[in-house]
Amino acid sequence: MQLDTTVDLSSYIIAPDPQAPRLTRSVEGVDQNGQPTEISVVEERPLTIFLNGQEIVTAMTIGDYPEYLALGFLRNQGMLRPDETVHRVDYDEDLETVVVRTDGQTTYEEKLKKKTRTSGCAVGTVFGDMMEGLEQVTLPDLQVKTSDLYALASTINRTPSLYLEAGAIHGTVLCKDHLPLVYMEDVGRHNAVDKIAGWMFSDGVSPDDKVLYTTGRLTSEMVIKTALMGIPVLASRSGFTAWGVEIARQVGLTLIGRMRGQRFVCLSGEDRLLRDADPSAVPDDDKKHRRKGAPT
Amino acid sequence: MQLDTTVDLSSYIIAPDPQAPRLTRSVEGVDQNGQPTEISVVEERPLTIFLNGQEIVTAMTIGDYPEYLALGFLRNQGMLRPDETVHRVDYDEDLETVVVRTDGQTTYEEKLKKKTRTSGCAVGTVFGDMMEGLEQVTLPDLQVKTSDLYALASTINRTPSLYLEAGAIHGTVLCKDHLPLVYMEDVGRHNAVDKIAGWMFSDGVSPDDKVLYTTGRLTSEMVIKTALMGIPVLASRSGFTAWGVEIARQVGLTLIGRMRGQRFVCLSGEDRLLRDADPSAVPDDDKKHRRKGAPT
Repeated sequence: MQLDTTVDLSSYIIAPDPQAPRLTRSVEGVDQNGQPTEISVVEERPLTIFLNGQEIVTAMTIGDYPEYLALGFLRNQGMLRPDETVHRVDYDEDLETVVVRTDGQTTYEEKLKKKTRTSGCAVGTVFGDMMEGLEQVTLPDLQVKTSDLYALASTINRTPSLYLEAGAIHGTVLCKDHLPLVYMEDVGRHNAVDKIAGWMFSDGVSPDDKVLYTTGRLTSEMVIKTALMGIPVLASRSGFTAWGVEIARQVGLTLIGRMRGQRFVCLSGEDRLLRDADPSAVPDDDKKHRRKGAPT
Repeated sequence: MQLDTTVDLSSYIIAPDPQAPRLTRSVEGVDQNGQPTEISVVEERPLTIFLNGQEIVTAMTIGDYPEYLALGFLRNQGMLRPDETVHRVDYDEDLETVVVRTDGQTTYEEKLKKKTRTSGCAVGTVFGDMMEGLEQVTLPDLQVKTSDLYALASTINRTPSLYLEAGAIHGTVLCKDHLPLVYMEDVGRHNAVDKIAGWMFSDGVSPDDKVLYTTGRLTSEMVIKTALMGIPVLASRSGFTAWGVEIARQVGLTLIGRMRGQRFVCLSGEDRLLRDADPSAVPDDDKKHRRKGAPT
């Protein structure tokens, strides 16, 4: 992709791999003129996550980084404590399973009881669990330059991705200053966040100086996940929900949305922003890279 | 909204009500220039669904049509049989609960067991249940004029909606021929579909001659829900996933995606299309009404 030459990808520890054969498939169809056409579509496969002997969940995922997805899901659901010792993670591609093995007891039995009540939650997670522990959250001080936010949005939108290749996929990026570090994509919005959480958990990465950028909407669940991960800033090119804003204000999360070209709106945690950029100097979204109908 | 005057809404049995005070909230923030700004954001609230005495699920929803949401969710999860007699649906706004009361026994105990295993599924539903019954699905023959599809897309995109008002919301529309009938929106994509299923269930509406239009991606779950509802055609302006296409082909569902202006791709069930329209005569998406970053 010609984009490669126009954007600096050197800061990425993990970047999307749009050419990976396992993640997309070429499918034949017919276009509006009745002509045969072949388009690239993203894969979507079940992955069943086990915690020790216990089957926890079956997630629909694109299939990359299953170990990070499993660790991040269990961590974000509170089934793995921050200090939990994970001594093995076994992924079996044929069985489409990941088994996370910990030392000693975990809290999953108790969690599973709750899951029975809230399972099938329309926003795709165990909501009863998610609200838990929010009271204890204290997010770190961090000064975020608006010039860095503009630089991030520009780099991320121009980074070769499965979205640009095949569409119909969500993206979430862990960032520091003006540098994107880990860019995960998935058919399930929350999988992309969970994969980042799994990577942070296994590498012991601090959330204190990080910014989370997502292509998705800033719903209550996205805000809660980001806060529980300890990341003080959440930015998106998409919009807000009222409860997402409310929770962000409660926990003191900096919430920035509708970020397109020079425009953005900050609805919470304004105090973390250092307004060093001149918005009028920021170019509009490049048409070629504009995320039309971006998943949220 | 000036749109009102430019689009014929007479066919709608249920249309979005973007002015409904309970569905959006005006929130104050700061824009890119540091100026105070006020934007309209969609509400998002929990709704707990009971089937008789049993708590089934807590869904995050915008909050309109709770009765249809509850009925449609239970129906789409297979917890209500098509012939089930529902003798009361009680919604309590303060308690944020809906109780669906049926005559005699339902299958929910058995279903709940499955939910324990699959809850938290990353695409937001009880996947183990969803696959069930797909083998028995036989979708009706139906001839769909491409001229009707173009007319639907144009009318729907220009219909005053919460999306156009506040963004960050999903839309799904039940249609017949060139006429949109029921247009539901929700923060959870599946809620919009479930609300339509609930309306069809309670009014005994036949799916045989209907087309389902969604703003969202054509994932396996959307395809499965549409097929289980018995609707033969699913169209979207968004993209596909590989498994969504695979399942559509298995059950013989007509699957149309990437529908923008004159363009679309049909990846399954091409035989139902009657190509009576000249695509080159179809205008491009009107910039003002184009769904930028449409939720999927």
